[in-house]
Amino acid sequence: MSPKITTELLKQLRQVMKSPKYVQEPVQAYIVPSGDAHQSEYIAPCDCRRAFISGFDGSAGTAIVTEQHAAMWTDGRYFLQAAHQMDNNWTLMKMGLKDTPTQEDWLVSVLPEGSKVGVDPFIIPADQWKRMSKALRSAGHDLVPVKENLIDTIWTDCPQRPCKPLITLDLSYTGVSWRDKIVALRSKMAERKVLWFVVTALDEVAWLFNLRGSDVEYNPVFFAYAVIGMNTIRLFIDGDRMTDPAVREHLQLDSTLDPEFKIQVMPYGSILSELQAVGAGLSPKEKVWLSDKASYALTEAIPKAYRYLTPYTPICIAKAVKNASETEGMRRAHIKDAVALCELFNWLEKEVPKGTVTEIIAADKAEEFRSQQKDFVELSFATISSTGPNGAIIHYKPVPETNRTLSVNEIYLLDSGAQYKDGTTDVTRTMHFGTPSAYEKECFTYVLKGHIAVSAAIFPNGTKGHLLDSFARSALWDCGLDYLHGTGHGVGSFLNVHEGPCGISYKTFADEPLEAGMIVSDEPGYYEDGSFGIRIENVVLVIPAETKYNFKNRGSLTFEPLTLVPIQTKMIDVNLLTQKERNWVNDYHQKCREVIGAELERQGRHEALRWLIQETEPLIRVQ
Amino acid sequence: MSPKITTELLKQLRQVMKSPKYVQEPVQAYIVPSGDAHQSEYIAPCDCRRAFISGFDGSAGTAIVTEQHAAMWTDGRYFLQAAHQMDNNWTLMKMGLKDTPTQEDWLVSVLPEGSKVGVDPFIIPADQWKRMSKALRSAGHDLVPVKENLIDTIWTDCPQRPCKPLITLDLSYTGVSWRDKIVALRSKMAERKVLWFVVTALDEVAWLFNLRGSDVEYNPVFFAYAVIGMNTIRLFIDGDRMTDPAVREHLQLDSTLDPEFKIQVMPYGSILSELQAVGAGLSPKEKVWLSDKASYALTEAIPKAYRYLTPYTPICIAKAVKNASETEGMRRAHIKDAVALCELFNWLEKEVPKGTVTEIIAADKAEEFRSQQKDFVELSFATISSTGPNGAIIHYKPVPETNRTLSVNEIYLLDSGAQYKDGTTDVTRTMHFGTPSAYEKECFTYVLKGHIAVSAAIFPNGTKGHLLDSFARSALWDCGLDYLHGTGHGVGSFLNVHEGPCGISYKTFADEPLEAGMIVSDEPGYYEDGSFGIRIENVVLVIPAETKYNFKNRGSLTFEPLTLVPIQTKMIDVNLLTQKERNWVNDYHQKCREVIGAELERQGRHEALRWLIQETEPLIRVQ
Repeated sequence: MSPKITTELLKQLRQVMKSPKYVQEPVQAYIVPSGDAHQSEYIAPCDCRRAFISGFDGSAGTAIVTEQHAAMWTDGRYFLQAAHQMDNNWTLMKMGLKDTPTQEDWLVSVLPEGSKVGVDPFIIPADQWKRMSKALRSAGHDLVPVKENLIDTIWTDCPQRPCKPLITLDLSYTGVSWRDKIVALRSKMAERKVLWFVVTALDEVAWLFNLRGSDVEYNPVFFAYAVIGMNTIRLFIDGDRMTDPAVREHLQLDSTLDPEFKIQVMPYGSILSELQAVGAGLSPKEKVWLSDKASYALTEAIPKAYRYLTPYTPICIAKAVKNASETEGMRRAHIKDAVALCELFNWLEKEVPKGTVTEIIAADKAEEFRSQQKDFVELSFATISSTGPNGAIIHYKPVPETNRTLSVNEIYLLDSGAQYKDGTTDVTRTMHFGTPSAYEKECFTYVLKGHIAVSAAIFPNGTKGHLLDSFARSALWDCGLDYLHGTGHGVGSFLNVHEGPCGISYKTFADEPLEAGMIVSDEPGYYEDGSFGIRIENVVLVIPAETKYNFKNRGSLTFEPLTLVPIQTKMIDVNLLTQKERNWVNDYHQKCREVIGAELERQGRHEALRWLIQETEPLIRVQ
Repeated sequence: MSPKITTELLKQLRQVMKSPKYVQEPVQAYIVPSGDAHQSEYIAPCDCRRAFISGFDGSAGTAIVTEQHAAMWTDGRYFLQAAHQMDNNWTLMKMGLKDTPTQEDWLVSVLPEGSKVGVDPFIIPADQWKRMSKALRSAGHDLVPVKENLIDTIWTDCPQRPCKPLITLDLSYTGVSWRDKIVALRSKMAERKVLWFVVTALDEVAWLFNLRGSDVEYNPVFFAYAVIGMNTIRLFIDGDRMTDPAVREHLQLDSTLDPEFKIQVMPYGSILSELQAVGAGLSPKEKVWLSDKASYALTEAIPKAYRYLTPYTPICIAKAVKNASETEGMRRAHIKDAVALCELFNWLEKEVPKGTVTEIIAADKAEEFRSQQKDFVELSFATISSTGPNGAIIHYKPVPETNRTLSVNEIYLLDSGAQYKDGTTDVTRTMHFGTPSAYEKECFTYVLKGHIAVSAAIFPNGTKGHLLDSFARSALWDCGLDYLHGTGHGVGSFLNVHEGPCGISYKTFADEPLEAGMIVSDEPGYYEDGSFGIRIENVVLVIPAETKYNFKNRGSLTFEPLTLVPIQTKMIDVNLLTQKERNWVNDYHQKCREVIGAELERQGRHEALRWLIQETEPLIRVQ
């Protein structure tokens, strides 16, 4: 991986930062956030402005360019990658380390007095704008919205915004019709006494209307906004996608509906002016509900006194709790996904010793096996196929420059997943195709203990996921090891592989309490820079637990693994496990054998079945 | 407990709320917060205004009186007590319950349009003022500061503000001179580019000057403020306390010092005008540092552009990290405290079966034994001496109406502590003087497992205490049990028994990371309403840990118990403990036997020594 040369680009950006064509007054700094206008984590190529200007294409990072400096803030997952991808024009700001300044503090330290700091108001979330603006103002500077995106002005070969066909999902997949979702949303709006709700997140629009798209790679979403009133529904979406008869029927665009379910389709680009019109027509006490992460531009369209902002929208919360149809779909998707991985691992065990399998070949092979499964749509994120030292790069993606050949001497880490029409998967397995060292087994076993501690945890109703994060670390901590990422994230149902409002991370506090039907990942790890990476990840479903005393009828919860892929027993130091942990592994493998075995049998995949049987032999303590 | 009759008092208060003598314009509501002008948790009798007007004297609660209504907000600990202590004029607002309105929402619902809501600006913290003022303003009302405290105008027999003599602490207790503390503070001020620091919390004033007082029961503090400049020190304190030669010498008031260590002594009541003078004299970029919990009155004295507010002050953070002298003092205090408790428990074992020992007698006896120890000053909080169902009332304090006799049939819970000149203690032990039931032992053992899980936890440097909270609950959760309080709080060194900025609680997120030298409590519990309460509490010191891999030189921490009082083995179901947990108990008891045994021997307390030996017999697994 050689860094992107950005000298010329930065020169051009610094010119437009002063050009009266684009800015009313010159800006002394320009902020390039990660996201798009919907604050998406995964973005379309036309929105990869931060990667364009810096070369760093990880999923999280903010660039700030001043007349003298160019700096990039990113987190522990990306320190190595960012350092590799950026040239010497850039300073890497390692977030989470004690001595790293915040963006605001850094700006204050480098800017001349009375500076203007520019940012695209459609790209920056309102809450970030507020924090940054306040900090800058108190130091005598100003945060100013720059209407035209300055990166776009210098990005001559910027790709077009995608506008791909839509997929309609019927009740057998979604469990609830879009009309019933609108009814439930309006009842939440009535509870909070708001008249309008603005849907800004792409996965929330997709979920609400039971539609999917493919405008963004890996995330089955499409570019759209929606504004829901008590009697009106406005969908802002471009292209000829609404001419598809299946979509028209699904949305009942041509039937004479009750007027409160009549969808008005409007151009994507008209959201701001339409919202401004809504804002201008409000009477006192009439409120508009927005996520506090909606863009500054849309938030400002509603006068302050009329805004009702919350960190999580009612759609975000409803979407997180999967209904029976969605849960069953997720189970089916995970069974198919496990079949594909059994095929892959069986194939790898035969091929790796030949020395011909690279990280890219392995990733492609995983995709090939997945694509053979029913209702496969695409991958759910870029496959992390990494061997040896590459495994220590937490969000590694193999490219020709880094592509390493799998061998019997190195640990192989595969973190991958797919979108099926019935569900989304995300699984990590760490394998050794030769003989692991005692130290590698020791580290793997601590990670496994952490994985089990979360997966088997029992906790009262109302517990927030962040309170479980330390369970995943305890065994590692005892030996002086740790990992610099959270333990789990919410997972969508044929939607984004990362979704709110719940998760398992020491970094959040404002997560919503876990409840039955939520789906999260459980993925502790351990990474040794320059040597190897270990991670064990299952997607797990929150389910009611049975306990002796049941929390005085408050009820209790635990997790059921949806992922059913063997955990390599060769990597386990059995003597480090407790009896309870050994039983957990054996029970888990028994279930893999039964459920995935039956499906392999049904699909006539006999060799993979033999591999599964061999990999799910019970652990026995040997001393 | 009969309620206080408040009809006449409320009538008088409503009169002064309209009297031009006290208010510029009539106020339609008056807020009576819990605290004093220093936002203390424990307050002097003259500051118990909320208790005076309502009768409710719990440690937390806010009263609001309007022309028609009188309402009291308090939390779950005090629902019963508040209901008993208040008459029918009052509505109890149960905080934490879903349907309870916030103070702001309630005010908006009952006030006529355009109302004024009054509050004493010295009593309300600036952050609360801001929140309340914003909410009221957005509903068309105004929060207004009322200079004269309206409760004081009708409180004819209000006690005087205490003004007791000061205690000076020399270097052998404090480890650092007040001059060196000022130097360190000024260096923190320089780092943040502030010119002035205002010390508003009583324990911060006491700590900074190495002085102690007894103006507030249980907390060895005195009423004072301080304002520290880069070259000036102003101490605002009343009475003839500065005429004491020992204090004059300690503060070097009469020596010709370097001018930057010359303390100007000023009247307590002149803080506001002096601070206003400081505020008026500031040039641009000159800042004044205050806690964001300082009173609205003092915060407003500094123009907004010149304020630098932080949730934790540099004194709060420095005070939390105990130096070697303080740590040694805490160790000594805990040894003496353990001696007193061994005497007490030995005495209880003999006396309880006679049926003559009540909760109050036991509490008094505990104080008697403590007072025999060197440098004993007073208790560190009101002793929680509770047997049977009283144990389930988490903040119980025995009074004649509730006083229960200890028996061989009920669990006894004693949560108590003392102030010694060398340290502060806080310890809870739960005992049975007959034969506990299997269920009582089971619950006790889960609580013990949680206590050990925290006490023996190893975690990397930089970990916040709230991440350890779930460790204390895991064993309880597995069986469907939990407790509704945090697991630990910071403990002062001959200072407040509750102090920030660290702790171990699921309720906080903004706590400062734990570091070596901090001292916290470890006190999980379990409470069965109407039956019993169990809590096991040690005060523990954060110390460096030795681990196999040492977190890549990031370093690791663990806890060392300072409390060395036997944990009743009769209450333990040994078969529920792991080998590691049994070893922890046995090692802990071995240390109690050695350290406390030696001190009991030295003090010639042979009977208590025999009791200690018997109570620290190693646990043996029996199946």
